[in-house]
Amino acid sequence: MMKKFAMGIDIGGTNTAFGLVDEDGNVVAEGKISTDKFKYFDDYKLYIETLATAMKELIASQPDCELIGIGIGAPNANIHSGRIETPANLWKFEDAADPRPDSIRIFNFVEDMSRYFGGTKIMITNDANAAAIGEMVFGNARGMKDFTMITLGTGLGSGIVCNGEMVYGHDGFAGEFGHIAVASRETGRQCGCGRKGCLEAYVSATGIKRTAFDLMATMTCESELRAIPYDKFEAKMLSDAAAKGDPIALEAFERTGKILGLALADLTSITSPEAIILFGGLANAGDYIMRPTYKHMEENQLGVFKGKVKLMMSGIQDKNVAILGGAALIWKQHLEAVIENY
Amino acid sequence: MMKKFAMGIDIGGTNTAFGLVDEDGNVVAEGKISTDKFKYFDDYKLYIETLATAMKELIASQPDCELIGIGIGAPNANIHSGRIETPANLWKFEDAADPRPDSIRIFNFVEDMSRYFGGTKIMITNDANAAAIGEMVFGNARGMKDFTMITLGTGLGSGIVCNGEMVYGHDGFAGEFGHIAVASRETGRQCGCGRKGCLEAYVSATGIKRTAFDLMATMTCESELRAIPYDKFEAKMLSDAAAKGDPIALEAFERTGKILGLALADLTSITSPEAIILFGGLANAGDYIMRPTYKHMEENQLGVFKGKVKLMMSGIQDKNVAILGGAALIWKQHLEAVIENY
Repeated sequence: MMKKFAMGIDIGGTNTAFGLVDEDGNVVAEGKISTDKFKYFDDYKLYIETLATAMKELIASQPDCELIGIGIGAPNANIHSGRIETPANLWKFEDAADPRPDSIRIFNFVEDMSRYFGGTKIMITNDANAAAIGEMVFGNARGMKDFTMITLGTGLGSGIVCNGEMVYGHDGFAGEFGHIAVASRETGRQCGCGRKGCLEAYVSATGIKRTAFDLMATMTCESELRAIPYDKFEAKMLSDAAAKGDPIALEAFERTGKILGLALADLTSITSPEAIILFGGLANAGDYIMRPTYKHMEENQLGVFKGKVKLMMSGIQDKNVAILGGAALIWKQHLEAVIENY
Repeated sequence: MMKKFAMGIDIGGTNTAFGLVDEDGNVVAEGKISTDKFKYFDDYKLYIETLATAMKELIASQPDCELIGIGIGAPNANIHSGRIETPANLWKFEDAADPRPDSIRIFNFVEDMSRYFGGTKIMITNDANAAAIGEMVFGNARGMKDFTMITLGTGLGSGIVCNGEMVYGHDGFAGEFGHIAVASRETGRQCGCGRKGCLEAYVSATGIKRTAFDLMATMTCESELRAIPYDKFEAKMLSDAAAKGDPIALEAFERTGKILGLALADLTSITSPEAIILFGGLANAGDYIMRPTYKHMEENQLGVFKGKVKLMMSGIQDKNVAILGGAALIWKQHLEAVIENY
């Protein structure tokens, strides 16, 4: 008997991972190719061909596999257009002085992939949205109609679900919660987006590192963190130091949690989610980040929302979320269609 | 031949207005009763009876009227529960020292009204959400799937529509955009909600008045506004003064528009709307408020959203929005059901 699978694809800067995912969220087979080997603009066509070939091999290796669709999570991907638009770390011009404008660095991923998988449903969205859909279909948000996923990696991504549907917005780029202002747009920290004061400049693996260095400058206490240069500093070192009671590390988590908690209280006022789910590198710090975040979120909630919003860790944190998220894009549509036709 | 109408009801502190609204948004007949006459908790039952009787008379006065439903816009109303929960200015305890807890000031409006209109579809939601649905069905948001309505009255209300659906959130109370922080929660302006730094303490008819008084304290220029005591000051006076070039009035609009523009840029990052629609008393100031708001919204947008979001005035500003909004709640569902059954 044929068994149904969705292919989930995670396009990262180093590797592109893909896997066949069944209805219960099991990754039954997976593979990967190097993304880095095809890092330049002119390598993109060969990248697609290499990826499609590897995917076909994986499918062929599974007897009785019925492919219901291919779902992709990628940076700067847009579900409406099916494109990856000017990604910061993918398929750049080989020569930094290349005169071609960045506006041509737009990759019709869905269309290009469909040349190899004609007739197959193919969908793409950005990483944070894919993670949110993964959480909704396979993780802690199962059964929830209103929740928000916050991914705390190098930056801060978000996927917002209202009325059971992903909020993509008019242009497909909604969910840039990492770029709301939490400090002055004139004097706040510089953000990678070119502005100042954005949430992700304070709350992310990079943000908390910046806070630790700020604290080393303003506090005089001893700290093992003072031995580490900025370039070698990783967010994980903060959890390790906090576990030993390091005052700089503990204060860094407190400040980061306070800023995140305040921002999540505001997000609650706007969308009133049942739960806010944290995911990613910084979320691995567990209670060190969860406790101050929850405390300050609660203290700053508008009265009507107090005590109502759950703050949770991802339920798929330890699995291959990116592959699950891509596959969940397909499974969500498939299962809804089954229910409608019932 | 029978003609279909939805009854829209607007519950205000002074009067309750109601009207029969056809598919095109025409209010073909309307009536009102005093809300103020039934201002106390123990008057609520008689209020419902009086309102239902007056509504039945209005319906009877229209030959060939087929009532497809009753939709209500009211403060603190919840679409999920059908209740009005602890409204600040309605049905309070007669004796301020009444020992009964505020938690019993919960009015099962939909259930109570259905005793008089058995079998009729009845829905209730808060005023700002009703205004947004009115705009979507009858106003400038027709055909839009993603937009936000901002009502600038005594406070700042919002109705957020994503994927063609109102965002009510898990508990039905989403859309409290007036209560996000735009200044420090510790040192910002006091807000009616009991906290500090909320958007509506700066951007609303009351907020801009507070700004004008702040400016009279910090600036030394002459201004006709200096002759008006705080208690007599109305937002309308600011438009009049601005028209004459009054520097305090012009600066008050600039500062108010800047704070609103920054907040709307952040809202765009979260929900990416096609348009943001302003409505209500302060919105009547027209260009004085629209121009600085748009300028600062654009200047502070994340790159990907620049130039994409329309800032508009309400298309039903000069009509009875509250009645239209209530009726639109019913018409929206009715028209969607017609399409589904087609």
